[in-house]
Amino acid sequence: MKILVLGGDGFCGWPTSLHLSDLGHDVVIVDNLSRRRIDSELGAESLTPIRPAKERLSAWLHVSGRRISFLEADMTDFGVTLDLLRDECPEVVIHFAEQRAAPYSMKSPEHKNYTVRNNICATHNVLNGIVATGGETHLVHLGTMGVYGYGHDEPVPVPEGYLDVRFAAIDGREISDSIVYPPSPGSIYHMTKVMDATMFQYYAKNDHLRITDLHQGIVWGTQTEQTRRDERLINRFDYDGDYGTVLNRFLMQSAIGYPLTVYGTGGQTRAFIHIQDTCRCIANAIEHPPGRGSRPQIMNQMAETHRLRDLAEMVAGMSGCEIAYLPNPRNEMAENDLVVRNDSLRGFGWEPIHLDQALMTEVIEITQKYAHRCDRAKIPSTSYWTQERERSQTEQTGTPDVAAV
Amino acid sequence: MKILVLGGDGFCGWPTSLHLSDLGHDVVIVDNLSRRRIDSELGAESLTPIRPAKERLSAWLHVSGRRISFLEADMTDFGVTLDLLRDECPEVVIHFAEQRAAPYSMKSPEHKNYTVRNNICATHNVLNGIVATGGETHLVHLGTMGVYGYGHDEPVPVPEGYLDVRFAAIDGREISDSIVYPPSPGSIYHMTKVMDATMFQYYAKNDHLRITDLHQGIVWGTQTEQTRRDERLINRFDYDGDYGTVLNRFLMQSAIGYPLTVYGTGGQTRAFIHIQDTCRCIANAIEHPPGRGSRPQIMNQMAETHRLRDLAEMVAGMSGCEIAYLPNPRNEMAENDLVVRNDSLRGFGWEPIHLDQALMTEVIEITQKYAHRCDRAKIPSTSYWTQERERSQTEQTGTPDVAAV
Repeated sequence: MKILVLGGDGFCGWPTSLHLSDLGHDVVIVDNLSRRRIDSELGAESLTPIRPAKERLSAWLHVSGRRISFLEADMTDFGVTLDLLRDECPEVVIHFAEQRAAPYSMKSPEHKNYTVRNNICATHNVLNGIVATGGETHLVHLGTMGVYGYGHDEPVPVPEGYLDVRFAAIDGREISDSIVYPPSPGSIYHMTKVMDATMFQYYAKNDHLRITDLHQGIVWGTQTEQTRRDERLINRFDYDGDYGTVLNRFLMQSAIGYPLTVYGTGGQTRAFIHIQDTCRCIANAIEHPPGRGSRPQIMNQMAETHRLRDLAEMVAGMSGCEIAYLPNPRNEMAENDLVVRNDSLRGFGWEPIHLDQALMTEVIEITQKYAHRCDRAKIPSTSYWTQERERSQTEQTGTPDVAAV
Repeated sequence: MKILVLGGDGFCGWPTSLHLSDLGHDVVIVDNLSRRRIDSELGAESLTPIRPAKERLSAWLHVSGRRISFLEADMTDFGVTLDLLRDECPEVVIHFAEQRAAPYSMKSPEHKNYTVRNNICATHNVLNGIVATGGETHLVHLGTMGVYGYGHDEPVPVPEGYLDVRFAAIDGREISDSIVYPPSPGSIYHMTKVMDATMFQYYAKNDHLRITDLHQGIVWGTQTEQTRRDERLINRFDYDGDYGTVLNRFLMQSAIGYPLTVYGTGGQTRAFIHIQDTCRCIANAIEHPPGRGSRPQIMNQMAETHRLRDLAEMVAGMSGCEIAYLPNPRNEMAENDLVVRNDSLRGFGWEPIHLDQALMTEVIEITQKYAHRCDRAKIPSTSYWTQERERSQTEQTGTPDVAAV
């Protein structure tokens, strides 16, 4: 199939592009290289030495014999988006072209604005462009488990996007309906994903677009079967306070003997998936498009759930590191349960990689191997969810820096 | 109170600004004059001869002795928004600064994009700016009844923003929750209002902003107690295919002997409110801000509901006009019931103006008086919800022009 991968130079986009190319698809990467520019802005870089986009692509051609095209383009420009869809006539568009870090989205008023403008305009341009070019293209979007929120007092099993509810009609009779799961975004970044979901519902209803929204858990791991084939293909590994996700950062901290930093009680439960499984799930989603006229197909793309303090203890047990409990810069519940349905992707025959199978590989292949490239100063988070949380941190510790989770 | 009225030069913004000034508030109008530019784009203008912004404001000073300040500024520029909030320190911001016509939002891919970018960026800049300037300002936003959708098979009473539902917990127990009413936007314009609502929920939760969202019915009528005081203060009256709302257009058509154009069966039921009541309700909303930490206060700002064919018959009865039933360019249910709660605003003592009390005034003061200014060519709508609807109209009538509702 002809597939456009928007944001195909990023952490999930790059290995997904290679995976799909390896399966024989005709892949075109479109990326404005914003993630590399943000590395410069933050003065942080991937622990792994990622190569320039062009060099990676020649390496892939060399290793696999398959060509991936690359276009440097910005999807927030509608003219560009429309030309691209007209010229390439893709059967599938995979949309990773969004600012994807919650802490980065909370850094300042300007970062909030950038995240909203970039993510909303990119998503709307793609939808609008697909309608204008005939409407047949299947859009596969990377969403997040975070849109569901983690705030329920009682353990509600998180369904795949839709919730069966009952409510009273005007005459007192009870009405049953299947509604979009009531969202509860916990950051500006998550808010944009909820707004994306509104656009998907609208365009599926009004224009009968085929849309798959993958609500992904926190991605861990770095390498896939394809990125491992040549050092020049290596995927990025972020450990900084903005882009480093919790498990990657625990691994990094353990490799350099930094205490594992847990926010609050560490009682937050989150969903996880290995980067290799991200690629496999997307390949499955491409093979199973919804029909035109269907509501958006929402699938939970996650393998397992863990409480953060349990993860910290697992990594501490492997490495002998200490655990440091710090005030939480985020506005969130101290403790929550999380039970998630992932029947759709499992139904396609997917067998997830679990943490206990691959965590040691990650330590050996990545964090120990590249520990010398780590800049310890970049580990703390300096993004606060509210001014009150920033004040409270500064009062308790004398500094607004928090080692980020 | 010091009040910023964003979009204060428009159809609802102008009379609201005068009403609040008349009540003794210190009003600052901020407007980028986009609505006047769209008049030029469409080659359509208000039936009533509205005056340039500066002339209206001097007239108001002359008539009332009260000064309203005016700033020509674009709220999609965050720097501008922030400076404005810092300089003016308003207690209340009333936000009308959005592209507000559903047919205009559907005219072309570029109009869809403009509506999304303008409405989302303006709303987000205001929220982001209020947080950055201390968070005390009360934001009053003009939303629409249209976010609820008109698609239920069974008559659900439309509550004020929130719906009580029940669903199953993981152990089979039943959970009760009050959720945001599941939205069902019927156009790109309506979709942006749903996305606004997501931002309101987020900012109320994370930053404890005070937000009131007024879900308004279709506004009819032109003049208010204040705009009537001098001809130079006259409010706009739109009858064109994009901006003219259904009742105003029936009145216009009857004044010039054009058949009243009803889409489909005319069985669509909609909510209505007189422009004078828009002003009164907003004044009430300002007096009753939600507390910090409350969820957004959502109130239905509407007086009565009517089926469109009943409205057409009412106007036809007054004028002797014929009714023409045409194919519907919109994607919507042919017939629907609508029962709406408006307890909150009624609870503040509001006694609505009803159609039968004021319809004749409208005919005499506006449509008959200014009928000579009407351009009949501007009455048809040329906006289609889908390409299929455009094709179907052209096949049935030989032209894509539909007299718009």
